[in-house]
Amino acid sequence: MKTIRIETTNHAYPVLIGSKIINQLPKLLIQTGISQKTKILIISDENVAPLYLQVVVDQLNKFDAISYVVPAGDVSKAIGEVEKIITYAIQHGLDRSSVILALGGGVIGDLAGFVASIYMRGIRYVQCPTTILAHDSSVGGKVGINHALGKNLIGSFYQPQFVLYDTSFLTTLPTREVRSGLVEVLKHGLIADRQFVDWLEKNADSLLHLDQEAVSYALKQGIKIKADIVMEDEKEQGIRAILNFGHTLGHVIETLSNYQYLHGEAVAIGMFFAAKLAAKLGWLSKEEEAFYQHLLQKFKCKTSIPKEYDTNQMMNIMLRDKKFKNGQIRMVLPIAIGQVKIEQNIDPKFIFETLNELKR
Amino acid sequence: MKTIRIETTNHAYPVLIGSKIINQLPKLLIQTGISQKTKILIISDENVAPLYLQVVVDQLNKFDAISYVVPAGDVSKAIGEVEKIITYAIQHGLDRSSVILALGGGVIGDLAGFVASIYMRGIRYVQCPTTILAHDSSVGGKVGINHALGKNLIGSFYQPQFVLYDTSFLTTLPTREVRSGLVEVLKHGLIADRQFVDWLEKNADSLLHLDQEAVSYALKQGIKIKADIVMEDEKEQGIRAILNFGHTLGHVIETLSNYQYLHGEAVAIGMFFAAKLAAKLGWLSKEEEAFYQHLLQKFKCKTSIPKEYDTNQMMNIMLRDKKFKNGQIRMVLPIAIGQVKIEQNIDPKFIFETLNELKR
Ligand SMILES: NC(=O)c1ccc[n+]([C@@H]2O[C@H](COP(=O)([O-])OP(=O)(O)OC[C@H]3O[C@@H](n4cnc5c(N)ncnc54)[C@H](O)[C@@H]3O)[C@@H](O)[C@H]2O)c1
Ligand SMILES: NC(=O)c1ccc[n+]([C@@H]2O[C@H](COP(=O)([O-])OP(=O)(O)OC[C@H]3O[C@@H](n4cnc5c(N)ncnc54)[C@H](O)[C@@H]3O)[C@@H](O)[C@H]2O)c1
Ligand SMILES: [Zn+2]
Ligand SMILES: [Zn+2]
Repeated sequence: MKTIRIETTNHAYPVLIGSKIINQLPKLLIQTGISQKTKILIISDENVAPLYLQVVVDQLNKFDAISYVVPAGDVSKAIGEVEKIITYAIQHGLDRSSVILALGGGVIGDLAGFVASIYMRGIRYVQCPTTILAHDSSVGGKVGINHALGKNLIGSFYQPQFVLYDTSFLTTLPTREVRSGLVEVLKHGLIADRQFVDWLEKNADSLLHLDQEAVSYALKQGIKIKADIVMEDEKEQGIRAILNFGHTLGHVIETLSNYQYLHGEAVAIGMFFAAKLAAKLGWLSKEEEAFYQHLLQKFKCKTSIPKEYDTNQMMNIMLRDKKFKNGQIRMVLPIAIGQVKIEQNIDPKFIFETLNELKR
Repeated sequence: MKTIRIETTNHAYPVLIGSKIINQLPKLLIQTGISQKTKILIISDENVAPLYLQVVVDQLNKFDAISYVVPAGDVSKAIGEVEKIITYAIQHGLDRSSVILALGGGVIGDLAGFVASIYMRGIRYVQCPTTILAHDSSVGGKVGINHALGKNLIGSFYQPQFVLYDTSFLTTLPTREVRSGLVEVLKHGLIADRQFVDWLEKNADSLLHLDQEAVSYALKQGIKIKADIVMEDEKEQGIRAILNFGHTLGHVIETLSNYQYLHGEAVAIGMFFAAKLAAKLGWLSKEEEAFYQHLLQKFKCKTSIPKEYDTNQMMNIMLRDKKFKNGQIRMVLPIAIGQVKIEQNIDPKFIFETLNELKR
C-alpha cells in the first residue's frame, strides 16, 4: 500500500493506494476520528453500486451505513440530484457529525463532495475512487456540479478526510474508460516529470491491462504531481493553470462531438495539438513532437481532429473559454518532454494552421 | 462612522456602521481590491429594492452593476431561487472576478452569501444590511438557505469582503421588524455585557424611534459581542452555543405559531423563559428575573406563552431540537444580568413547570 499526504492551508489528509485495501476502511475511519455507529451516507452510481456497494457496506458493519444511488454519468452532477440527496439525508437523520462516502468515479466524487460541503454548512466526507480519472479529481479539493449553461459552474473548494483507492475496483472499468483515465496520468507526467514519462512509455501495456502494481505506481506518481502543483496554488491564481494542458482544444472536441469523445480521448488530441503547435513555434524539436505521437499511440489514443470540424468554429469556441483572459489566446505548451510553459500571446495564425494540419 | 474589524482564521474584514454612509461604497470597493468596471450583481428583495436599489446603483456608476430582485421573506431562501440567480448570473457574464452585493435583511444576506460561496467555486461578496436583525447575520460567516424539511439546513461558512451598514436605511423598517431586531441586540447584551444592558435599558425609547446615534452604537456593541464569541469558536464547537440564548423555546414558538411570531418576538419569550427557569433553579435572583421582564417590556416585547399551546408538545419539539445532544436537555441559562452558562442536565420537571407558569 502506498500513502501520499496532501497538505492544504487548513487541512491535511492521506491518499492510500493499493490492491484489495478496502478492508482498511473501518480502521481509517476510526483513525480519522469517525467513531463507530457514526451515520455514513454512501453515494454511488448505477454502474458502480451493483459491483461494489455491498463490499463497502460489509466493511461498515460497525457503523450506521445507508446509501443513495444516482444515475451514471455527468447528468447526475445537477442541482436536482443535489436536492434529492439532501432530502434523503435529512429524512434519514444525517446530522453534523455524520459522514458522506463517495464510491465511484469523478462524477460521484464531485457530486458527493459538493453535497458534503453544503449539508448543514459542511460535514465530513471520504472518497473511494473507482476510476483512473478520479486520481485527478480526488486531489485539489474542487467539488461541484454542472449548470444547464455550462460544466462545473457551481461548486466549492472542500477537502476530504481521506482518499482510499482500491485499485482492484478498476478491473471492471470499460476499456475506453481505462484509456481515457490514463491520459490524465500521461498529462501529469508530460507537464512535470520526464522520468515518469519514460516509465509510462515502457509500462503502457501493463497499465492498459491494469497490472495492479503498475497502476498503483502510476496513480501515486500522478497524484503526487497534481498535489505538488495544487499545494503551491490552492485557489488557482497562477501555476495551477498548467494542469489545463491539452484541455483547451480538449473541451472544444468534447463540445463539438457532443461528448461522444470521452474526456481523456479529447485531452489526448489537445496535448498532441499543443506539442505540434510548440514545434511550429520552435520550442519543441521535431523528435519531441514525434515522441508525443508515439507515446499517445502506445496508449491507444487518437491524435487527429475529425476532418469535418470547422476550424473557424473551433477557434471561436477556444476564444470563449474562460481560461482565455481578455480575448487573448493563452495556452499551456510543452517546451520539452516533462516540461510546459504558459504562453500569453500566440499568433492565431499558427493555431489555425496547426488545427488544419491535425485534421484527418 | 464606526468601524469594527472581524478576524477569522483565513480572512479579516471591516464592518462600517453609520448614518448616510452609502456614499462610502465605491471607495470601500476600491480599497478592497475590487477595481472599477468590475461586474457587481446586487441581490435584493421586493420590499427593499424600490426603496434603496437605485441609491446603491447610483453609487456604482464606475462599476458594471446589475441587479436581481427576489420575493421578500424566508420563502426566497430556497434552492429554486439559488438556481434562478445563478442562471441569471451566467447569462449576464458574471465571472470569477465579479462580486455579489447583498442589499437587504438577513434573508438576502444568507441567500446572496450562499450564492457567492458556490458560484464558480466561490466569488467575493459584500453586505449592505437593511434590517436591525441583520447585525446578527452579517457576522459569523454563516450563509445558507432552507429546505422544505427544515430551516438553514443547506449552507456554508463564507465571509464577506466588508459590511457597510447605513443606518438611515433602517428608518423605513416596519415597527414590528424594528422591535424584533432589537431583541437580538438585547440578547447580545444579556449574554455578555452588563454595562451594555444598562445602556440599552436607558435608551430603549431612542432605539425604538431609530435615533441614528443610538442605533449605530447599539449595532456596534451587538456586533462586537457576537464577533468576539464567533472568533473564539468559528465552527460551533463550544462557546458559540451561548448565542442560542432564548432560541430553544423561541423556535418552538415560531413553529407552533406557524411563523406568525417574528424571530425576535419569539426569542424574547424564550429569554424570559430562560430567566424564569434560572430563577427557579436558584441561579438568578427574583430581582434579576423581574429586571428581565421590565427590560423586555420596555422594548415592547411580550413575555408570555399563548395559553392554548400544549406544554407536552412544546417539550417534545424542544427535545427534537438539534441543539440537544443525545436527548439531554441542554440550555443556555442566565446566572446574572449580562452572563449566561450552558447547562447540560436540567430536570424536565422544572422546564415543564416554568412553561406552564408562562402561559397566559
Ligand atoms: N474535481 C476535479 O478536480 C475534477 C478533475 C477532473 C475531472 N473531474 C470530473 O470527473 C468527471 C469524470 O470522471 P470519471 O471519468 O471518473 O467519470 P464517471 O464517474 O462518470 O465514471 C465513468 C464511467 O465509469 C463507470 N464506472 C466507474 N467506476 C467503475 C468501475 N470500477 N467499474 C465499472 N464501471 C465504473 C461510471 O458509472 C461511469 O459510467 C467529470 O464530471 C469531470 O468534470 C473533476
Ligand atoms: N446567518 C446568520 O448568522 C443569521 C443570524 C440570524 C438570522 N439569520 C437569518 O436572517 C433572516 C431574518 O432576517 P431579517 O429579520 O432581516 O429578515 P428579512 O431579510 O426577511 O427582513 C425582514 C422584512 O423587512 C423587509 N425589509 C428589510 N429591510 C427593510 C428596510 N430597510 N425598509 C423596509 N423594509 C425592509 C424585508 O423585505 C422583509 O419583509 C432569517 O432567514 C434567519 O435565518 C441568519
Ligand atoms: Zn481533465
Ligand atoms: Zn436569532
